[in-house]
Amino acid sequence: MSKKYVYLFQEGDASQRQLLGGKGANLAEMTRIGLPVPPGFTITTEACNEYLASGKQFPAGLWEQVEEKLAELERQVGKRFGGRPPLLVSVRSGAPVSMPGMMDTILNLGLNDTTVEYHAEATGDPRFAWDCYRRFIQMFGNVVLGIAHHRFEEIFFEHKRRAGVEADYQVPAEALRRVVEDYKALVRQEAGREFPQEPREQLRLAIQAVFESWNNPRAIVYRQVNKIPDDLGTAVNVQSMVFGNMGMDSGTGVVFTRNPSTGAKEFYGEYLLNAQGEDVVAGIRTPQPVAVLERELPAAYDQLYRVCHLLEQHFKEMQDIEFTIERGKLYMLQCRTGKRTAQAAIKIAVDMVHEGLITREEALLRVEPAQVEKILYRSVDPNAQLDVLATGLPASPGAAVGEAVFDPDRAEQLAREGRRVILVRPETTPDDIHGIVAAQGVLTSRGGMTSHAAIVARGMGKPAVVGCEAIRIDLAGRSFSVNGRTVREGDVISLDGGTGNVMWGAVPLVDPELSPEFRELLAWADEVRTLGVRANADTPVDAQKAREFGAEGIGLCRTEHMFGQGGYHPERMPVVQEMVLAETAEERRAALDKLLPMQREDFYGIFKAMEGLPVTIRLLDPPLHEFLPHQEQLAVEVAVLRATGGDPAQLEQKERLLRKVRALAEMNPMLGFRGCRLGMIFPEIYEMQARAIFEAAVQLVREGLRVEPEVMIPLVSHVEELRRMRQLVEKTAEAVFAETGVRVRYTVGTMIEVPRACVTADEIAAEAEFFSFGTNDLTQTAFGFSRDDAEGKFLAAYLQQKVLRENPFVALDQPGVGRLMEIAVELGRKTRPDIKLGICGEHGGEPSSVDFCHRAGLTYVSASPLRVPIARLAAAQAAIRHGRR
Amino acid sequence: MSKKYVYLFQEGDASQRQLLGGKGANLAEMTRIGLPVPPGFTITTEACNEYLASGKQFPAGLWEQVEEKLAELERQVGKRFGGRPPLLVSVRSGAPVSMPGMMDTILNLGLNDTTVEYHAEATGDPRFAWDCYRRFIQMFGNVVLGIAHHRFEEIFFEHKRRAGVEADYQVPAEALRRVVEDYKALVRQEAGREFPQEPREQLRLAIQAVFESWNNPRAIVYRQVNKIPDDLGTAVNVQSMVFGNMGMDSGTGVVFTRNPSTGAKEFYGEYLLNAQGEDVVAGIRTPQPVAVLERELPAAYDQLYRVCHLLEQHFKEMQDIEFTIERGKLYMLQCRTGKRTAQAAIKIAVDMVHEGLITREEALLRVEPAQVEKILYRSVDPNAQLDVLATGLPASPGAAVGEAVFDPDRAEQLAREGRRVILVRPETTPDDIHGIVAAQGVLTSRGGMTSHAAIVARGMGKPAVVGCEAIRIDLAGRSFSVNGRTVREGDVISLDGGTGNVMWGAVPLVDPELSPEFRELLAWADEVRTLGVRANADTPVDAQKAREFGAEGIGLCRTEHMFGQGGYHPERMPVVQEMVLAETAEERRAALDKLLPMQREDFYGIFKAMEGLPVTIRLLDPPLHEFLPHQEQLAVEVAVLRATGGDPAQLEQKERLLRKVRALAEMNPMLGFRGCRLGMIFPEIYEMQARAIFEAAVQLVREGLRVEPEVMIPLVSHVEELRRMRQLVEKTAEAVFAETGVRVRYTVGTMIEVPRACVTADEIAAEAEFFSFGTNDLTQTAFGFSRDDAEGKFLAAYLQQKVLRENPFVALDQPGVGRLMEIAVELGRKTRPDIKLGICGEHGGEPSSVDFCHRAGLTYVSASPLRVPIARLAAAQAAIRHGRR
Repeated sequence: MSKKYVYLFQEGDASQRQLLGGKGANLAEMTRIGLPVPPGFTITTEACNEYLASGKQFPAGLWEQVEEKLAELERQVGKRFGGRPPLLVSVRSGAPVSMPGMMDTILNLGLNDTTVEYHAEATGDPRFAWDCYRRFIQMFGNVVLGIAHHRFEEIFFEHKRRAGVEADYQVPAEALRRVVEDYKALVRQEAGREFPQEPREQLRLAIQAVFESWNNPRAIVYRQVNKIPDDLGTAVNVQSMVFGNMGMDSGTGVVFTRNPSTGAKEFYGEYLLNAQGEDVVAGIRTPQPVAVLERELPAAYDQLYRVCHLLEQHFKEMQDIEFTIERGKLYMLQCRTGKRTAQAAIKIAVDMVHEGLITREEALLRVEPAQVEKILYRSVDPNAQLDVLATGLPASPGAAVGEAVFDPDRAEQLAREGRRVILVRPETTPDDIHGIVAAQGVLTSRGGMTSHAAIVARGMGKPAVVGCEAIRIDLAGRSFSVNGRTVREGDVISLDGGTGNVMWGAVPLVDPELSPEFRELLAWADEVRTLGVRANADTPVDAQKAREFGAEGIGLCRTEHMFGQGGYHPERMPVVQEMVLAETAEERRAALDKLLPMQREDFYGIFKAMEGLPVTIRLLDPPLHEFLPHQEQLAVEVAVLRATGGDPAQLEQKERLLRKVRALAEMNPMLGFRGCRLGMIFPEIYEMQARAIFEAAVQLVREGLRVEPEVMIPLVSHVEELRRMRQLVEKTAEAVFAETGVRVRYTVGTMIEVPRACVTADEIAAEAEFFSFGTNDLTQTAFGFSRDDAEGKFLAAYLQQKVLRENPFVALDQPGVGRLMEIAVELGRKTRPDIKLGICGEHGGEPSSVDFCHRAGLTYVSASPLRVPIARLAAAQAAIRHGRR
Repeated sequence: MSKKYVYLFQEGDASQRQLLGGKGANLAEMTRIGLPVPPGFTITTEACNEYLASGKQFPAGLWEQVEEKLAELERQVGKRFGGRPPLLVSVRSGAPVSMPGMMDTILNLGLNDTTVEYHAEATGDPRFAWDCYRRFIQMFGNVVLGIAHHRFEEIFFEHKRRAGVEADYQVPAEALRRVVEDYKALVRQEAGREFPQEPREQLRLAIQAVFESWNNPRAIVYRQVNKIPDDLGTAVNVQSMVFGNMGMDSGTGVVFTRNPSTGAKEFYGEYLLNAQGEDVVAGIRTPQPVAVLERELPAAYDQLYRVCHLLEQHFKEMQDIEFTIERGKLYMLQCRTGKRTAQAAIKIAVDMVHEGLITREEALLRVEPAQVEKILYRSVDPNAQLDVLATGLPASPGAAVGEAVFDPDRAEQLAREGRRVILVRPETTPDDIHGIVAAQGVLTSRGGMTSHAAIVARGMGKPAVVGCEAIRIDLAGRSFSVNGRTVREGDVISLDGGTGNVMWGAVPLVDPELSPEFRELLAWADEVRTLGVRANADTPVDAQKAREFGAEGIGLCRTEHMFGQGGYHPERMPVVQEMVLAETAEERRAALDKLLPMQREDFYGIFKAMEGLPVTIRLLDPPLHEFLPHQEQLAVEVAVLRATGGDPAQLEQKERLLRKVRALAEMNPMLGFRGCRLGMIFPEIYEMQARAIFEAAVQLVREGLRVEPEVMIPLVSHVEELRRMRQLVEKTAEAVFAETGVRVRYTVGTMIEVPRACVTADEIAAEAEFFSFGTNDLTQTAFGFSRDDAEGKFLAAYLQQKVLRENPFVALDQPGVGRLMEIAVELGRKTRPDIKLGICGEHGGEPSSVDFCHRAGLTYVSASPLRVPIARLAAAQAAIRHGRR
């Protein structure tokens, strides 16, 4: 006996989504609870997968089961497939995961030259019957036989012209007969075969076409972008037709049980009388808001309203419902969980808790953290007047403002001068990567959501608009034109990577705000989650923002910005360079003495902003040459001065600087003289930083405030490094406490960011009161990927070719990097059961990584301030899914 | 009751080396087996450690035990300490590990103004007695009271001048009395106290001085260089004095039971009549070969010969023996395992097996693999006439020839032009590192065995002579002078890092040869070891050498040299650059088509040299920009051409090249676009290489030869990379087999050289028939150390400060990198129990790392050809120590 491949709607239920697809399972569920669903059956995803795997052969027994269910259908509706009155069916795809508009649909199947007459007879409307036949041939011709839509449209248009009518529904029956003849001729000519007259052959071919649509290019790309596995397959729904276009007592529409944009609890949707679904899509007639239906067809409206309410109560979810009214009678064609904006998702979830429909935990699971991200970017001020030049694909969210630049070298150069630029290119290649790095955002005129520019920008978290085909770029002329206007290099433009808008000038940006519902949801998240959430913040302003967003401390306060990196504190740069260029420890100490009060002030501000919460401060990490001028540029200047006989004093000074820059230069700075290695060789630097920390802490304690400094030693690969740096910090702390007579409680710990630290975490834990996983560097060292190089040079290709499913710098690589973390957690706890374990790489704000951190037993995650709400939500979901820890 | 801190010689034996020190344990053993040893006792290393740990307090009970043993000594020799006749003792240090000359000795202790008269009376020789007293004050004054030797020597010299004599033994008794008075006055003046007259106080102070000598700077440095733990402590041997300077029937000497230089079985050594040990050292009289003693004192000679033979038979080891003859009677003062050259060690071990003295396994354990290294370097031709300019410290073995260069930048520049240079600097700092990298060898005029230059050169395996104080370097003048001769920049010099010699001109170098004994020993090693030994070889010549040295295959054949890297095949460079600069796959393929026959020829030669043995070929690994000109230099050329209005055509060409070089440039090339990432993005490169491999293999099979290619994919971090590259190789192999009609057996495997590969080795093993651990890169990624940067910038300091005990690029870091390997071995075997596991990093030829590989269950190690014998020996030792696997 063969497997069961075909289910009547009354045989299934909502739980069988995997087997019957989303649409099929819900049709079954609606049938089961007694709603008016036109009868039909579903062919399983298993059948589809077996068909595709076997080289396009129907699995044994499938067709027999289809025949059997078809016979059942005939009994239920009292019509005959290919007979009199004719049973007509729709054939629709329905995957386990919603892929809207990606798959194909055929309506009115079962019509042929004979049954069209029976259909006319049964409906008493020959015009209607012939229009059904016309539509069927057109859809079948397109979907099954691969004939372009516009070929049919041209024929139809010509007949309308001849008939002297404008609207489709005005075309008389006789004209439609001729259209059908011409359509069949087109099929003969293009497909090299007659249009199949046998309904069973039609059905068979349609089922095959739906199966095969699983692998059409649109569907493949959609799955790629939305990370849907390729092996789910699609189910096929065969359903008896009902008609919304049988007069003004008929109609069709789509409704949502709540407003999908705002989440407001209101009956929301549109309908058209005397129309089929495709007429709505065609956009010739304007649909009416569903409220109008109450006046036009009050009985149907009442029934619809009741059914919708019942469905929401039944599924305990906002529903997106397709319905048809055939001669006053309501039919449900589809219901599914409604798509919604992030704002709506949050409001609906919270409201439903208040309505007693779902629990808080369910509400927390209803909101997708990744979606929430979109409302947490700095975004274009909604009250701003925008001068939109063009709209492209929204490839990477966020908003960016800068001067248009058309060349990556130029972008890099201007950025080095501290200017903000937007890189504009027809498309990007690995050769442009330094320009992308330097830019605030990227705009391309070609390429889709998986183009190089899109992937690289998303990886770097930079806003990008791609495939903006309206703009014409003149690289040689360093400009682009759009609608008669020209943007030249240096003109300021703005991008909105969330909408795809490209705007003239600098648009005002606003910080995100949390709605009251979101605050409420996050408060529930805080009750549920066991994973702490901190923020990565380097300034008092960031710390304040983080606290506002619910951060329970700072997990990573980098000190390099305080040293002037990245254009912060330009006034400090000369002192920092003095320190870097020092030839002796005394010279270095003299420069450090000048830096001490500045650092102390930095820490004072941050401690104050985070009063009462822990603050993890990482001592200086980047290689010192990052604070010096660029070597190649300097070498060029020296050579040119020499060649042109320039000022000897200037030459000598530059030569001296170049020598030092050369001496500090490194082949692989990422793996070079940085992190605690700086502190080991120049202990005076870390000593100054420790002193600044403790002096600031003492000052606050004297002011009656509570501080909780956690001093973090970066890039430890061997316990001995930590042991010595810890001693240095402790000695300095004791000195400050002795000088001031005030003691401050503090801890010393380390970043775990190289694999050796993971596998020797038992030794390291003996010296560390806390570990903080630096997963950016750990990902670089575990893979042997330099992020600077990989993302542009080969990682984009790896993602395009699915060598890797995810960018490991965005979502934590759990089997590799995660495994190393698990080893470290286990070894660390073995030595020090109460060790505090955190993560401060960018992964700390990415939902799947947060889930991993919960499972791995970490104490907290630390994310950038704007991602703190995401982390709170993701941590709560992890606790619900995997249990509290 | 207190611990036993003091052992009479008759209470101990040779097994108590740890407690009694090497000297004490052997004195006990000789006493135990009835040899004529002057009675004495040993204070344990425990007593020393407790003394040092307690802040220089004698442990409770120690002194009482010394008193007790002293009384026993008085009974044994019939003399009294501080009495009549006076018991005189020597006080000598003796650590568990031999530290020759590093510790202090005091003779004739027990003499004072009174006992010197008793001593004169007992010996009947006042001159002798006063000379003993003089020597004692001098040694005691130096060792215990810290008065410089030369201060005593000046006094003694003045008295000799006044007495009108030259040799010490000619000074009359009366003059010696006055010397003693002046010595005592010197002590009073310098030490601020009287010379202690009380023998017990002398003894107590002497014991303390020996204890404390454990931490004198010489001893600390010696332990550091020789990797001896700091916590062993030293024992103190107190022994009744015998005198070799009591006339022409007395004497003293040192003999070896075999020739320590050649290993020949002959009685070898020197002696002096009427002398004490220190007279031999002073070098005023020339010692006689021990054979002469047979004529001068035949009875003593006979006895000595018999005792020495007995000791060798007893210890089953070549002995280094100190003896004294007092008035015709032989006394044994010390015996220990004799130091020997590598050649001698091998010959002695093999001879002793043939003599039935030891087993083959014992012989294998007798030869230190690290020592053998010295005879496996290319070395100075022993038959060459050498013009030695000066001799410094032999800091890093091997010989080097090159032009003297005095500036690291210049060294780098000349090396880039393909010239061989020797970097000459007063000393080196991290700023010189690029010069050391570029040089064949390093010569410094300052610094010791642990100076920056010494550590860095050893780490890089480059010959170095340091602290060569005879040369005077004029950096500004780019020259050095020595003994009136001047070496200028560009003059060729040679270094011998094994002897410390610096030679004028290019000395001829010779390849090492294996002696018959060494071949025999290695044959035994091959019987015992279970770990395979292969070689890393890139050319047929290297492969031939490796085979000659016993390699059982090639574990790593790098293909980058075949692409012209490192100055090999300069004629290929233009073709390789054409390939690198290609803008399209077609252009790239065209260049690859030209490279194919060259690669095929390379592989043909290597397969032929290794006929019948496996050859692992690694597909192209380095980043492509390594094949292009240097970016900064190019940028400078372009800028200068622009500034000076140079040839526009040349400018344009260079600008184009610069653009490409820039596009390929990387922040961290070590972690960049290299390894299999090249093959993933440009599959045509790996395809060409695979084709060359299989075409060469087919050609050899047609010639009737056996080939065993193993195709190795480098830098795999994710199984998907290996899966795809493996498919590419297999597809190419099938194509070649189909074209030629010949099939060749081959395997495909991967390097394991990034931590992610280790922790996902179970997945990777599904696609790999073998793993080869690339421990150079694995060390870089596990630690986060870029070798290029670390060794110069901070690793030397880490080693000097003992943050790390060993350079992890020399000896495998077992707790970290080794742990990652163990994880990979376990996971790999879980998926594929018969997976072949090798190592091809430089560690494959380092003994402690080979030992680890044996324990970790690897199949083979692969080492550079010259290190193959070391690996064979080390592998045998590992099998003996840890059991065969």
